[in-house]
Amino acid sequence: MYTNIFNYIDEIEDEIINIRRDFHKYPETAWNEYRTASLIARTLDDLGFEIYLGKDVIDEGSRMGLPTKQVMKAEYNRALNQGADRRFIESLEGGFTGVVAELELNKEGINLGFRFDIDAIPIDESKSDEHFPYKEEFCSFNEGIMHSCGHDAHASIGIGIAKALLNIKDELKNIKKIKFIFQPAEEGVRGAKSMVEKGIIDDLDYLFASHIGMIDSGSLVCGCNGFLSSTKIDARFKGESAHAGGNPNEGKNALMGACNASLNIMSIPRHKDGVTRINVGKIESGSTRNAIPKDAFMMIETRGQTNKVNNYVKDKVINILRSTALMYDLDLDIDIVGEAINCNSNSDLSQIIYDLANEIGLFENVIKEDNKVKGSEDFTYMLNRMEERNKKSIYMIIGSNIKGGHHNSKFDIYEEDMIKAIKLYLAIIYKMDENIMSKNFDMKEILQK
Amino acid sequence: MYTNIFNYIDEIEDEIINIRRDFHKYPETAWNEYRTASLIARTLDDLGFEIYLGKDVIDEGSRMGLPTKQVMKAEYNRALNQGADRRFIESLEGGFTGVVAELELNKEGINLGFRFDIDAIPIDESKSDEHFPYKEEFCSFNEGIMHSCGHDAHASIGIGIAKALLNIKDELKNIKKIKFIFQPAEEGVRGAKSMVEKGIIDDLDYLFASHIGMIDSGSLVCGCNGFLSSTKIDARFKGESAHAGGNPNEGKNALMGACNASLNIMSIPRHKDGVTRINVGKIESGSTRNAIPKDAFMMIETRGQTNKVNNYVKDKVINILRSTALMYDLDLDIDIVGEAINCNSNSDLSQIIYDLANEIGLFENVIKEDNKVKGSEDFTYMLNRMEERNKKSIYMIIGSNIKGGHHNSKFDIYEEDMIKAIKLYLAIIYKMDENIMSKNFDMKEILQK
Amino acid sequence: MYTNIFNYIDEIEDEIINIRRDFHKYPETAWNEYRTASLIARTLDDLGFEIYLGKDVIDEGSRMGLPTKQVMKAEYNRALNQGADRRFIESLEGGFTGVVAELELNKEGINLGFRFDIDAIPIDESKSDEHFPYKEEFCSFNEGIMHSCGHDAHASIGIGIAKALLNIKDELKNIKKIKFIFQPAEEGVRGAKSMVEKGIIDDLDYLFASHIGMIDSGSLVCGCNGFLSSTKIDARFKGESAHAGGNPNEGKNALMGACNASLNIMSIPRHKDGVTRINVGKIESGSTRNAIPKDAFMMIETRGQTNKVNNYVKDKVINILRSTALMYDLDLDIDIVGEAINCNSNSDLSQIIYDLANEIGLFENVIKEDNKVKGSEDFTYMLNRMEERNKKSIYMIIGSNIKGGHHNSKFDIYEEDMIKAIKLYLAIIYKMDENIMSKNFDMKEILQK
Amino acid sequence: MYTNIFNYIDEIEDEIINIRRDFHKYPETAWNEYRTASLIARTLDDLGFEIYLGKDVIDEGSRMGLPTKQVMKAEYNRALNQGADRRFIESLEGGFTGVVAELELNKEGINLGFRFDIDAIPIDESKSDEHFPYKEEFCSFNEGIMHSCGHDAHASIGIGIAKALLNIKDELKNIKKIKFIFQPAEEGVRGAKSMVEKGIIDDLDYLFASHIGMIDSGSLVCGCNGFLSSTKIDARFKGESAHAGGNPNEGKNALMGACNASLNIMSIPRHKDGVTRINVGKIESGSTRNAIPKDAFMMIETRGQTNKVNNYVKDKVINILRSTALMYDLDLDIDIVGEAINCNSNSDLSQIIYDLANEIGLFENVIKEDNKVKGSEDFTYMLNRMEERNKKSIYMIIGSNIKGGHHNSKFDIYEEDMIKAIKLYLAIIYKMDENIMSKNFDMKEILQK
Repeated sequence: MYTNIFNYIDEIEDEIINIRRDFHKYPETAWNEYRTASLIARTLDDLGFEIYLGKDVIDEGSRMGLPTKQVMKAEYNRALNQGADRRFIESLEGGFTGVVAELELNKEGINLGFRFDIDAIPIDESKSDEHFPYKEEFCSFNEGIMHSCGHDAHASIGIGIAKALLNIKDELKNIKKIKFIFQPAEEGVRGAKSMVEKGIIDDLDYLFASHIGMIDSGSLVCGCNGFLSSTKIDARFKGESAHAGGNPNEGKNALMGACNASLNIMSIPRHKDGVTRINVGKIESGSTRNAIPKDAFMMIETRGQTNKVNNYVKDKVINILRSTALMYDLDLDIDIVGEAINCNSNSDLSQIIYDLANEIGLFENVIKEDNKVKGSEDFTYMLNRMEERNKKSIYMIIGSNIKGGHHNSKFDIYEEDMIKAIKLYLAIIYKMDENIMSKNFDMKEILQK
Repeated sequence: MYTNIFNYIDEIEDEIINIRRDFHKYPETAWNEYRTASLIARTLDDLGFEIYLGKDVIDEGSRMGLPTKQVMKAEYNRALNQGADRRFIESLEGGFTGVVAELELNKEGINLGFRFDIDAIPIDESKSDEHFPYKEEFCSFNEGIMHSCGHDAHASIGIGIAKALLNIKDELKNIKKIKFIFQPAEEGVRGAKSMVEKGIIDDLDYLFASHIGMIDSGSLVCGCNGFLSSTKIDARFKGESAHAGGNPNEGKNALMGACNASLNIMSIPRHKDGVTRINVGKIESGSTRNAIPKDAFMMIETRGQTNKVNNYVKDKVINILRSTALMYDLDLDIDIVGEAINCNSNSDLSQIIYDLANEIGLFENVIKEDNKVKGSEDFTYMLNRMEERNKKSIYMIIGSNIKGGHHNSKFDIYEEDMIKAIKLYLAIIYKMDENIMSKNFDMKEILQK
Repeated sequence: MYTNIFNYIDEIEDEIINIRRDFHKYPETAWNEYRTASLIARTLDDLGFEIYLGKDVIDEGSRMGLPTKQVMKAEYNRALNQGADRRFIESLEGGFTGVVAELELNKEGINLGFRFDIDAIPIDESKSDEHFPYKEEFCSFNEGIMHSCGHDAHASIGIGIAKALLNIKDELKNIKKIKFIFQPAEEGVRGAKSMVEKGIIDDLDYLFASHIGMIDSGSLVCGCNGFLSSTKIDARFKGESAHAGGNPNEGKNALMGACNASLNIMSIPRHKDGVTRINVGKIESGSTRNAIPKDAFMMIETRGQTNKVNNYVKDKVINILRSTALMYDLDLDIDIVGEAINCNSNSDLSQIIYDLANEIGLFENVIKEDNKVKGSEDFTYMLNRMEERNKKSIYMIIGSNIKGGHHNSKFDIYEEDMIKAIKLYLAIIYKMDENIMSKNFDMKEILQK
Repeated sequence: MYTNIFNYIDEIEDEIINIRRDFHKYPETAWNEYRTASLIARTLDDLGFEIYLGKDVIDEGSRMGLPTKQVMKAEYNRALNQGADRRFIESLEGGFTGVVAELELNKEGINLGFRFDIDAIPIDESKSDEHFPYKEEFCSFNEGIMHSCGHDAHASIGIGIAKALLNIKDELKNIKKIKFIFQPAEEGVRGAKSMVEKGIIDDLDYLFASHIGMIDSGSLVCGCNGFLSSTKIDARFKGESAHAGGNPNEGKNALMGACNASLNIMSIPRHKDGVTRINVGKIESGSTRNAIPKDAFMMIETRGQTNKVNNYVKDKVINILRSTALMYDLDLDIDIVGEAINCNSNSDLSQIIYDLANEIGLFENVIKEDNKVKGSEDFTYMLNRMEERNKKSIYMIIGSNIKGGHHNSKFDIYEEDMIKAIKLYLAIIYKMDENIMSKNFDMKEILQK
């Protein structure tokens, strides 16, 4: 049953790889994915999908951790210079860089959704000869930005699925609509909430997402759990400068505030109810050597195995920041610039994918569920919304032998694994369509819609 | 006796003010004074002085706190664009931005020296309408750099003295040579040592320097003492990054190293033998929120009432940095990027200037000596060398009603006080010439030469 | 089958309660259980058990966290004054306060062991009227010491089992020997290792232990897992005193060393492979206000879900202590005064106890296994040795509605729960004896012995 | 003129030494000087002085840093056992251990006062054979307490002066009254204020005090200045305990509060207007290793060259304690347990003593004034009150070759220097009496009284 479509996918392998390398060459950070999003929109529009974008798919007030207007303007202009599509880019302006593409298949049936994140990370890409993107000349053109988490591959997988879907769409009888969601700003867990709040997944029965890498090529985790709840906090202390030699007692030392806060934040006690994580990822404080530093900027991140445990850490962080401000007589601004909740994949879906993966034989090592503690992922906002609606959602991990770790300057995936991912998604589409018929599946739920 | 020359100086007031405003408009930081130094060289060359510059007046290895080559190159190019003199700038390239101008007067007699510092500070100048340089449109053109310590005035005073000197040079009988020393990189106490080590003050009998501001217009401190010995230290911790959620135990946290070191550095105990000062003026650490920071950069400054006391603090700082590196398993680079010693003005000279100032009546409030604890000043290297050679040297403070404090974005001097300073220096020249004759002075010492 | 013996146990309830109250009145801390151990020895000797004690059951070099000789001497004398048995106490002198009592039943068969810990805790007992031991006048006579962890009950349960055992011993056919192990110094996890190293459990086939409290009366956890590996560390910094006003630079500040070490110890990063715990439980530093403190004493405790994770924390603690010593120019002594490993109850035994408990119906709420993270318990040394020998061992929790938490000054158990515990142990003895016959059990293993 | 009285003083040398050794044998800490004070009272009563003591010379509410009632009771009983005088001790009970003895000489004239401090220090005395008091068997009988600051000598000097005064009293014509003030609790600068507030120096025209040691035998500092203003602070944090393994998130960690506060207190910036000192002299926190410490006690001391500068440090300390309490969610008690102000000796008196000392020739090295930074001394409260009243007061240093430093367990004076001190005081009495006559002195001031 899968032979034809798998053969077709093999044929478009080079095309998918080229798309991925193009995205890799022009990485864009969160909320600035103007070029990436506009080209995705054009491609799916050309394929015949209905396109929604910008403020139609992003709730303005639910966006977190926006860049400054200047940065957004500059990135917008760069996108134009680097070949963004002018038909679509205007709708994205000002940090509304999400795209949704829909295909209507039948009058009746279930609605499926696939979500792909598309943003890159603010780190320098390696210029080492051993780094494949550098050797093959698709290394980042945008200094200080890199697709080092594989979202270039995610976007390309999405496009590949869309293309392949067109080849099988007439065979599908029980699916009403398939929706492709290209989400901005997953890094820093800042974007998913704004699409959820806009309601774009509220008509879906099943929603799928996946991450490439993390485990070896040939491995698949069906239902990924264990995401940590997380809060991203920016803190700014403002004090007063003074000449460090002449008037040491007259300064209000923001640097000492940041140092003290950091030490105490890192010593927040463990919680009996679950794993916690804390990091102060950045401090910038002071300008000249002989003045008492009057400003300090801190980037902080908390995580917890549950929302409760994460909130415990977050509240302690905020209390430490506030009492430190008091201690050093500083003003303090605290911004919550990102937040992810903890939520698990649906276990029925895990079982279905597990059986399916064993059936199609693309992966040598199929793991039904993984509960190990992980980083954070804002797809949890979508998992949570689906669960609230009694619908099913799953987050998978598609193995790939990566170089360097995720978020490392030498990160690179093994490109053929994108092809495996596209095949898996096509098999899932068939399976979801067929399930209705075969009655293996929970018919009741579907009929209740 | 002073009437004629004082009248002449009044006539060139506008010229001196224009020179100062030109320097103010194009401020250059330490070791990058390409434009400033080349224009000084041209001006004094035009006046007929013998010019020495670049490696002839700067000892390469004794320079401290050099900028990077890239910065030096960029600043060099900017200087060219902003009107640096192409005849002189080449000799200055690579951070050799000192100028010495000499005038030979007689076959026999004493050698006098005057030292002026010429560099600006890396801070933004105020764009407030109340800020005189902004209102009068000679505000800094070079973003992030400002003459907020009055060295633009110092350089202009030097040029003014040189011009006026030509008018009286034939009256002078007992002075053999007058040397004008324009020193780079006083900020951060980085430049004087390199000129001292080059030997450029080793033929002088008397050496004078001064600072404008600090006390009110109309006030003069003759012999300024109480400079703190000081060391400027850059520290760089290098650790290892790791994903803060996934592998918190695998990182080597340079940010925590910097925070710990800062806290402990600021708590170095007082010393029984004299005043100490410590400052961590800057920390930069980390890049992304969710990675354990692998780099941290710190700018540190120690001061002490005596060299011994400063060394006590400096040694403690270094020990704290090293043990912190051990605690957090970090690599550590320590650079000493500036150093000033403590040394006093010659008290005989203080008395002479005190009597002279009272005689000429330019200043309403003449203070013979000031011993209060001050910041650091690398002229102390020159004071010290002169004292070692049994020669006399003095550092004066010429009052000016400043706006904003020194090193403040609203700093501004009262320009007429430059004219007072030039008159004082001319009177000093007469006095030094005359002293030989009047026998009021310590003849023995002069004859022993 | 259990009716007779359960009735007998009900008859001795008052006696057991009186024994418990006597132990409660005269609590003794780790390695000082002279009175407690001597009275246990006398009681079991009177019952006809073979008694081994002192150096015969304790390996001298494997003891951890010994009190000073002065303290041991004083406690020994107090024990004598408070009714210790003079026949047995001499063998215990010097911190050898373990007792083993054996009963030989048959020529052939299995060897069973039961372990009871007997030490108290250095905290003050509540004198509140609501505190039952105070109201009933068996509150601690020994100021600053209290049985606030229920080891008085454990010892009493041991004696109760021994008494009841005599009533059924002739019915037992397949048990060769039953060994009662009264272990000192469980608090601080200091004592078990010394009995293990002496070899006293090396002839056992099954070993049982339990803790009272922690869950409600009527609940039973059969196989308790999740004990954290733990290390107990004492650190002593030695610096130099100096007059804080006169010579602040001459001191070597041990107090600042302890404070710094504490902050950094508490901020040791979490480990990806499992739960960790850290505590600085005590600091004592300094004597007079105006001298720089020259001594600091710290009590530290690390825990980890696995031995590896605990060792990670322990190694970090030691590195922090050492680098702090360097930072403050201090001498440092580090003593490892206690250590527990992580090890689980045998799951076959958990199943057996689970079935048995359900059969006898003493407990309303029987939990087969509990894996939640717990404190540390040095019975893990015994669990581990049994496992190494391919023998089976289990740690149970016998519920009791306690007042105040464990280690709290208002801690108190519900005394009837001791009776339930004794009954359970007697049922276990029957079960272990019967199992051989009923063949429900793993016969092979037993025959292989 | 001085010959006779100096001869007499030489005759009583042995007696004075014996008195000193008796005091040395029975040292008593601040506010517990029951034996010392009662024996002084008896001795001066026997000599014919009018005696005032207890609440007549101590203002109850102005006492700082009192011991607990239990300690006071125990020390009182020890004093009785060690030979306190029962006639006088009752008036001293409860920490009122001051004695004032007056001698009326004439109907008219000036009133002189002499102040002697009498308390010892809570440290162990050396038991080394090289320690003179140990070798000569007058080492401290009171464990943990020692006269290691020479107040035993001060009290003995006071008695010596009183005895000698009787021999010359009839020669004195211009002195109305001489008052001997024996002050408790100078250590920790806790006692002077309570005598000042009681008004006992408000009738004096001249007040003298001195310290033995600090400089070599044969040296004398006439007017001692440079005392630091100082505040003594006790801080107690109260949090909540919790099992460090089981419920780490539930504790409120007082130990971490104390550590944080200490680090931040020690890093309070220097003040531009003068020397500062800070010390955390003691931390006691926590009891058992596995509980989060719920209590922490800190002893803190601030000093400053001026009251303003000391208050700057003190206010920062209090702010740090408070914000730390907030950070760790702790309750906080702050007690000010001692306070000294900074104040200088009267310079006219310094000149008089300087001339006198040179005239009588007892000291080889006479220093008129010493301004170096010193510890604190609560005689400054008296200096200050005298100055407020336009009267004159002076603090002298009488050299003695000491062993070990002040506050050291091997401290010992050279006893003959007490004799020199007594002679000096007698000469001062003569001088003060004579000055009126000789008119060298400021007659106006005296007549204005």
